[in-house]
Amino acid sequence: MWLQTSCELKFVIDVPTPFILMLRPRSGEQQWIASEEYLLYPSVPAFEFTDDYGNLCQRLIAPKGDFTVYTSSRIMTADDVDQAPGGTFVDIQNLPDSVLKYLLPSRYCESDRLGDMASKITADQQLGYDQVAEIERWLNTTIGYKPASSFSSLSAIEVKQQNSGVCRDLAHLGIALCRGLSIPARMVVGYLYNLEPMELHAWFEAYVAGRWYTFDASRQVKKGGYIAIGYGRDAADVAVYNQFGPSVTPVHQKVSVQLI
Amino acid sequence: MWLQTSCELKFVIDVPTPFILMLRPRSGEQQWIASEEYLLYPSVPAFEFTDDYGNLCQRLIAPKGDFTVYTSSRIMTADDVDQAPGGTFVDIQNLPDSVLKYLLPSRYCESDRLGDMASKITADQQLGYDQVAEIERWLNTTIGYKPASSFSSLSAIEVKQQNSGVCRDLAHLGIALCRGLSIPARMVVGYLYNLEPMELHAWFEAYVAGRWYTFDASRQVKKGGYIAIGYGRDAADVAVYNQFGPSVTPVHQKVSVQLI
Amino acid sequence: MWLQTSCELKFVIDVPTPFILMLRPRSGEQQWIASEEYLLYPSVPAFEFTDDYGNLCQRLIAPKGDFTVYTSSRIMTADDVDQAPGGTFVDIQNLPDSVLKYLLPSRYCESDRLGDMASKITADQQLGYDQVAEIERWLNTTIGYKPASSFSSLSAIEVKQQNSGVCRDLAHLGIALCRGLSIPARMVVGYLYNLEPMELHAWFEAYVAGRWYTFDASRQVKKGGYIAIGYGRDAADVAVYNQFGPSVTPVHQKVSVQLI
Amino acid sequence: MWLQTSCELKFVIDVPTPFILMLRPRSGEQQWIASEEYLLYPSVPAFEFTDDYGNLCQRLIAPKGDFTVYTSSRIMTADDVDQAPGGTFVDIQNLPDSVLKYLLPSRYCESDRLGDMASKITADQQLGYDQVAEIERWLNTTIGYKPASSFSSLSAIEVKQQNSGVCRDLAHLGIALCRGLSIPARMVVGYLYNLEPMELHAWFEAYVAGRWYTFDASRQVKKGGYIAIGYGRDAADVAVYNQFGPSVTPVHQKVSVQLI
Repeated sequence: MWLQTSCELKFVIDVPTPFILMLRPRSGEQQWIASEEYLLYPSVPAFEFTDDYGNLCQRLIAPKGDFTVYTSSRIMTADDVDQAPGGTFVDIQNLPDSVLKYLLPSRYCESDRLGDMASKITADQQLGYDQVAEIERWLNTTIGYKPASSFSSLSAIEVKQQNSGVCRDLAHLGIALCRGLSIPARMVVGYLYNLEPMELHAWFEAYVAGRWYTFDASRQVKKGGYIAIGYGRDAADVAVYNQFGPSVTPVHQKVSVQLI
Repeated sequence: MWLQTSCELKFVIDVPTPFILMLRPRSGEQQWIASEEYLLYPSVPAFEFTDDYGNLCQRLIAPKGDFTVYTSSRIMTADDVDQAPGGTFVDIQNLPDSVLKYLLPSRYCESDRLGDMASKITADQQLGYDQVAEIERWLNTTIGYKPASSFSSLSAIEVKQQNSGVCRDLAHLGIALCRGLSIPARMVVGYLYNLEPMELHAWFEAYVAGRWYTFDASRQVKKGGYIAIGYGRDAADVAVYNQFGPSVTPVHQKVSVQLI
Repeated sequence: MWLQTSCELKFVIDVPTPFILMLRPRSGEQQWIASEEYLLYPSVPAFEFTDDYGNLCQRLIAPKGDFTVYTSSRIMTADDVDQAPGGTFVDIQNLPDSVLKYLLPSRYCESDRLGDMASKITADQQLGYDQVAEIERWLNTTIGYKPASSFSSLSAIEVKQQNSGVCRDLAHLGIALCRGLSIPARMVVGYLYNLEPMELHAWFEAYVAGRWYTFDASRQVKKGGYIAIGYGRDAADVAVYNQFGPSVTPVHQKVSVQLI
Repeated sequence: MWLQTSCELKFVIDVPTPFILMLRPRSGEQQWIASEEYLLYPSVPAFEFTDDYGNLCQRLIAPKGDFTVYTSSRIMTADDVDQAPGGTFVDIQNLPDSVLKYLLPSRYCESDRLGDMASKITADQQLGYDQVAEIERWLNTTIGYKPASSFSSLSAIEVKQQNSGVCRDLAHLGIALCRGLSIPARMVVGYLYNLEPMELHAWFEAYVAGRWYTFDASRQVKKGGYIAIGYGRDAADVAVYNQFGPSVTPVHQKVSVQLI
């Protein structure tokens, strides 16, 4: 399907503030960026680099006063999410080098302490895809999605204690449980068609049966319409903006995804 | 200045043909891509990767029949080209690791055989920027730009023998002469405002005084308006398209650069 | 000074177990590896790759039975640790791209929650090197080194709660505090001459005044003799071995560092 | 088989001279470095980096006077070279991104001008491994190995004109012919057990049937005992030393490979 996305972030800046933005989706296996717009008001110099996860990041200094970032894209993505019931666990020795880092614990995914829990949840499952599908099902039914249940990022253990979370929280717990089973898992931030209320979304991918598969514990029925903006080990890596110095929050944030 | 660029390539394909395209300018130190469009007719799956030089490349298979690639961008770039008369030669031991590869000979730049010639041309110059500026001046006055004097890529030695060339040829000889003096040099392919006749352009950059500087032996008066699409060691690395299998040439190629 | 190092790890393996080892120091700015030995008993195929931090990692499957890894090296390293009192804070916009990742929170360094504490500790200091030196001093005097006070890795916040730690723990808190001040900081695992009792050591580096400087909160008097084996965001990235499947611990671990 | 290798290079230096050395074999799919020694007389600071091909390179400044580089290693490598008659050609669209660069022409491999010749030589062969094996056979029987037939590097076209060459020359022509058939090919420099006279050796690898295979046009009977030191597009990328400033040649070069 073809989607038209946009994201507008508006800040009021007190002192010139360094930002690192991650708002440029990349063309890849799952999506093709046919057109894209990236506007800064006021216009300031911005420098782009690629991080360790392949994301395009933009560095700039936001000037004092109103500062707005507006991006929009026209993107083709899949109508349905690929699934692979029975897909095999990939033995560690057969994982590509570049995937190994997604086995390690990270800021919000304390997989080093969740191995037993992951084994219990997936006790009856075949190793691989079915384990991850069971984790996704378990998150969806047992933890459950609760809008705005947290404002700052919670770690997997905190989400488990709180027993509910937003999409980002569920993804953190899902990722940590996968890694606890030696299944590489990573976080994705992006757009999702038909999300309500519309905002940026977070989900996760697990590496089974030789490739990355999409999982989303905050959606009972899995349809397509996913557009990835950034990949990383967890939310610490895929902030759509990181800002340094005195804290700044958007006074206005508007996300839109339209079918075209 | 703000420029609106576009490039349209149209092919007639006999058998499905793998292409690697390099037509997506990146935001960087010298330019900011405010908007961008990248269309394929008919629409086919395309996968993007980043090459060793930081270029965004797109892989696809062009189907039988008419196949068109259309890209356009709105880009901010500098009004003037930075210059640094007297800029110092950077000792090899102080070059960043990532720059070292631009010292080596490459397909079209046989710098291993042009060291003596480079020394002669720059005999009276201070080491560094002034040597490169002298090479640029020498190319412009002695070799000289001659439109359409070659259809396929010529190497630096062939350009010297022929004693004239298109922009790409002059860049090859310029790069080879710089490297012959142990000055890192690389090729750039891109757009240039006010080029006549309008088409894709090629120039070179040399690393002196701690950064890359732009040189263009095919222009007597150096103004701004340069937009880089790709960087590499020479034309072999920065083809806007590489195509495999039976040879295919564009039946139509149209480039446009407008001030906005 | 020239040092002879060795590290022997002996495991008893019940089922064939995938390992990722990180036991090969690299020649770099601070050290030169003149000779090196890396032995596996029994000998098994091992494959090396470079991770995102530039570390050389070895992948292998340890067979059932006794399994020993023995590495030794002859290395030149500095007699003294470089210091730079008054060294300036590097503004975010001037940091190299490759350093930015060391600003983010990571598994054991919850810098997103320690900014206020870091500001208090360093309230009277000039921005930059002096802040980090004060953090090091504060860790050394207030938290304090306590051998074997933890067996598994503790996060910065846990170390603060426990109010003591081993070298690794102090490094985690030090790193988190630096990042809380927008100073890039990373963990180093390696050898230290004259460490008592002799074992592998952990310390941290902070990026100030245009380069990485060494800090070690577990040593009151800073001398040289440091040899880095691995760099990373925290202990999750620089385990000298990661092992997958049923847990395995070394039955024997012996580290030696001799002056030669 | 286990091999003990050594390489000694001795220079007489007139003015302090920057060197980039590539003399450190890496553990990989085909070989395991059990021990290694790397000595510089006199001892000077050296800094290591990894180039675009994954080679470990050492930067240093050789001081005035005698300067010796001595490396030795104990390495396990295969008894036999893997072969795969009938191995399939990999379609361009299925090649890994990282392999694509080995399709392009390079300094000494003008594959852009040797496609017709490659097609003629391999006219009767099945696409893939058998084409490369036929190129190897053709090089061995038609061009032929001739010790010391060239002192400096010759390009593929020059080798063809001269109709004979050393191992490096045959590899260049072999690589160029493979690329002319859209088969990725790369140069390898290293050691070979039982080579006579003993010196550093060069051969090539082609990517067919999903992996790199070893080919060596200068050996009629293919046995094992290969140890790779460096990989690259051609000899320009894999010089065991690059030196800048006034030309310096080794006054003494001794290579040894012993079975242990």
